Amino acid sequence: MSKSITSQTDSYSTWYTDIVTKAQLADYGPVKGTMVIMPYGYEIWDFVKNIFDQMIKETGHVNAYFPIFIPKSYLAREAKHVDGFAKECAVVTHTRLKSDDNDNIIVDPESRLEEEVIVRPTSETIIWSMYKKWIQSYRDLPILINQWANVVRWEMRTRLFLRTSEFLWQEGHTAHSTAQEAEEETLKILELYRSLAEDFLAIPVLTGLKTESEKFAGAERTYCIEAMMGDKRALQAGTSHNLGQNFAKAFGVTFQNENNKEEMVYATSWGVSTRLVGAIIMAHGDDNGLRLPPKIAPIQIVIVPICKNEEQKKAISQFLNISLSNLREKGIRVHEDWTKGTPGSKFNKWELKGVPIRIEVGSRDIENQEVVLFRRDKNEKNNISIDSLADIASKTLDDIQENLFLQAQKFQIENTHHVETFDEFKKVLNNKGGFIKCGWDGDPKTESNIKNETKATIRVIPFDQQIDGLQCIYTKKPAKYEVVFAKAY
Amino acid sequence: MSKSITSQTDSYSTWYTDIVTKAQLADYGPVKGTMVIMPYGYEIWDFVKNIFDQMIKETGHVNAYFPIFIPKSYLAREAKHVDGFAKECAVVTHTRLKSDDNDNIIVDPESRLEEEVIVRPTSETIIWSMYKKWIQSYRDLPILINQWANVVRWEMRTRLFLRTSEFLWQEGHTAHSTAQEAEEETLKILELYRSLAEDFLAIPVLTGLKTESEKFAGAERTYCIEAMMGDKRALQAGTSHNLGQNFAKAFGVTFQNENNKEEMVYATSWGVSTRLVGAIIMAHGDDNGLRLPPKIAPIQIVIVPICKNEEQKKAISQFLNISLSNLREKGIRVHEDWTKGTPGSKFNKWELKGVPIRIEVGSRDIENQEVVLFRRDKNEKNNISIDSLADIASKTLDDIQENLFLQAQKFQIENTHHVETFDEFKKVLNNKGGFIKCGWDGDPKTESNIKNETKATIRVIPFDQQIDGLQCIYTKKPAKYEVVFAKAY
Repeated sequence: MSKSITSQTDSYSTWYTDIVTKAQLADYGPVKGTMVIMPYGYEIWDFVKNIFDQMIKETGHVNAYFPIFIPKSYLAREAKHVDGFAKECAVVTHTRLKSDDNDNIIVDPESRLEEEVIVRPTSETIIWSMYKKWIQSYRDLPILINQWANVVRWEMRTRLFLRTSEFLWQEGHTAHSTAQEAEEETLKILELYRSLAEDFLAIPVLTGLKTESEKFAGAERTYCIEAMMGDKRALQAGTSHNLGQNFAKAFGVTFQNENNKEEMVYATSWGVSTRLVGAIIMAHGDDNGLRLPPKIAPIQIVIVPICKNEEQKKAISQFLNISLSNLREKGIRVHEDWTKGTPGSKFNKWELKGVPIRIEVGSRDIENQEVVLFRRDKNEKNNISIDSLADIASKTLDDIQENLFLQAQKFQIENTHHVETFDEFKKVLNNKGGFIKCGWDGDPKTESNIKNETKATIRVIPFDQQIDGLQCIYTKKPAKYEVVFAKAY
Repeated sequence: MSKSITSQTDSYSTWYTDIVTKAQLADYGPVKGTMVIMPYGYEIWDFVKNIFDQMIKETGHVNAYFPIFIPKSYLAREAKHVDGFAKECAVVTHTRLKSDDNDNIIVDPESRLEEEVIVRPTSETIIWSMYKKWIQSYRDLPILINQWANVVRWEMRTRLFLRTSEFLWQEGHTAHSTAQEAEEETLKILELYRSLAEDFLAIPVLTGLKTESEKFAGAERTYCIEAMMGDKRALQAGTSHNLGQNFAKAFGVTFQNENNKEEMVYATSWGVSTRLVGAIIMAHGDDNGLRLPPKIAPIQIVIVPICKNEEQKKAISQFLNISLSNLREKGIRVHEDWTKGTPGSKFNKWELKGVPIRIEVGSRDIENQEVVLFRRDKNEKNNISIDSLADIASKTLDDIQENLFLQAQKFQIENTHHVETFDEFKKVLNNKGGFIKCGWDGDPKTESNIKNETKATIRVIPFDQQIDGLQCIYTKKPAKYEVVFAKAY
């Protein structure tokens, strides 16, 4: 692991790619825009997945699986929806290959489909075409279905985990008999997303509403969790949509209510994706590599023995034996690195991979009945007695989890700026970056003017609104909302 | 749940479709050949998935994720491989939609891809294109990667879970430095598949080798687990392939061995799919519906209270309270059905859904301090005392798991016939069906003649061979193998 990593200050984007590839989280696939999620990256995603899967099951949701192929005409039924996805659709037109006269493999022109099929960019349309079959009466509601799936949005400018043609995600699609119930569901999920980000990924997030121009294509309202990355740019980390009756109308999904009256069904949809792995990298990583929150770290503690011969190896193994058993009994994920290689190269490797705690043990440590505990969140070493190892290490994991959150939160607060004039807005954006909190008159035109002039967009309209006496940063009209602007991924 | 199910004897295939749709395991998707896996069906698959995922992790495998899109030229690199899949490939040719002059949504002709992209029918080619990047030295080997994914093989004649254009599966793809290690891996996985089928799904399987004509396109040798369904037809339930150096050659994947010599890498691949859910239905189902092995049953025990008013309801709830707590503490999945509806309709519903144990409790049962325990494997009712409920029910679950296996095994043995002449072969096949064990001269021509004349194929060449004095059933030449013929799904 002598491969060096570009520093964040030299180039944040090269630093990011270095981390992703050198820590072996992901690699580029052969088709432009595609990504291979390597085992270490996949394991992190699997932790995220399992945590959220449990959350939604505890709140009454079930998993199902809908086909990846959507008839083109279905996608077209909701006008705004198809507008939102038309420019990035993978279209299947044929179903066979054959050999031509020169023995080249070509697409068999005779296998052309009558109606082209779209590889799902998201599943609202196909799911609501099924809900039409499944929903007749209020007794069939609510439907609280989620699916774990791959989706495709054709991309040319790849950014591993952040922007790829195919990514993995969960997409919840619920059906309700009242507008209120749909809104409650939308907000319930937003709260789960907040908890997932903050309590497990240690990433503080802003929560609130998206503007009309930033909302999901086909939604009435989109709520989001928005995070700040290490370069102070914003990352949309999860969205929860109240779809109103838009998809029920597009697919004619009605139900008989308790008074035998026919009504349109209300819908929500919501998703988080492998993009969260990118968020974890950028919210916590430093120039030495990843720093993983213990709750989602595939390895929580790595043991690096420092020994020159078989005898020393045996002694160290024996010395650690009880402590490691104790740690494993507590359910802590411990990895022992007995491979060849210098201690220094191992330290670099496991720091790059973001393992929260490293334990170093050499022969002299045995004499002193102690070990060295290195914590990745602070890059600090301490000697601790072997007898206290299991206890201290397990408490330190909790502490690292909390500290990573606090570090990120401090960073977010320090880089959130209240500004009052548009000059100040531009100056802060260019010189400091980060989140800019200010007034907005609520006009989409103002929003797009600011975007065109500065590349900053409204990331979120926070729930907590303080607009008394506030002016729009651009038009100086009375502010309708206090909003958060930022440059975003 | 008054929907009636076609009996197995009236039409096995209609019975199958009835079970799948009426027990709400799956539904048909809008694009021909596609399937929606409904929550109850998905939950069964999730149990299968989690069991096998643990098995492969315990044997040193890790999960990863490779792109769904394969460049056409990659698929074409292994000649036999592309032959095997050419006729069922979904081909992506365009990447955008647009509105035409009449405001219809059409495929944008200008978005045509330079090289068409195939939706993976299986991932050998894309994975070996990546292994070429990842493997340099013997130190990089073995690679023991698995992925859980969707794959597409275009189908027009849909059979839910058994034959669909898209299905879910796991596909393992391993890379080794020696032929022997690859063979050991292939057989190790076969043993995991056998255990998955027999010890968890309660489905007895034959294990052995596929013939040349039945093996995987691109493999040296294909091993399989083969099961007998309720209509005595065979179902290939899992395959493990030794790919030799075929894909390493196709993608130029070499490694430096310990003596600094360049060698080709050895490969295996292996998979089981959502087809297993179809196997569970057909191995155990009866005219009343599913019969689920407890280890993969989403609900292991359903409680059906028989009460006419709130007071009775309360009394029953109190009466059951401790027993249900005890069951849940043992980790048993209990569902209480307090919905409206007659007891009879609830009995039908839960029998249809294959819940292993039903507990019925009415007011009179409280007086007698007992409950009725119905076991789905035998469709038998017994009164048991409330105090012994938790104990007896938990033991009964074990017993049901074992009994379902023994019933299926007895059925398989009774319907396996040793025959010595081709006349007898045809007679048994037409009149009785089932597995036919007989000699084969090892000639592919003989195999295809028998297939053409009878529609029976060689399902497996069992490991356990007894060919002393055995003749080929068709040519009467000395048998090279004892094989198992059957009509298959």
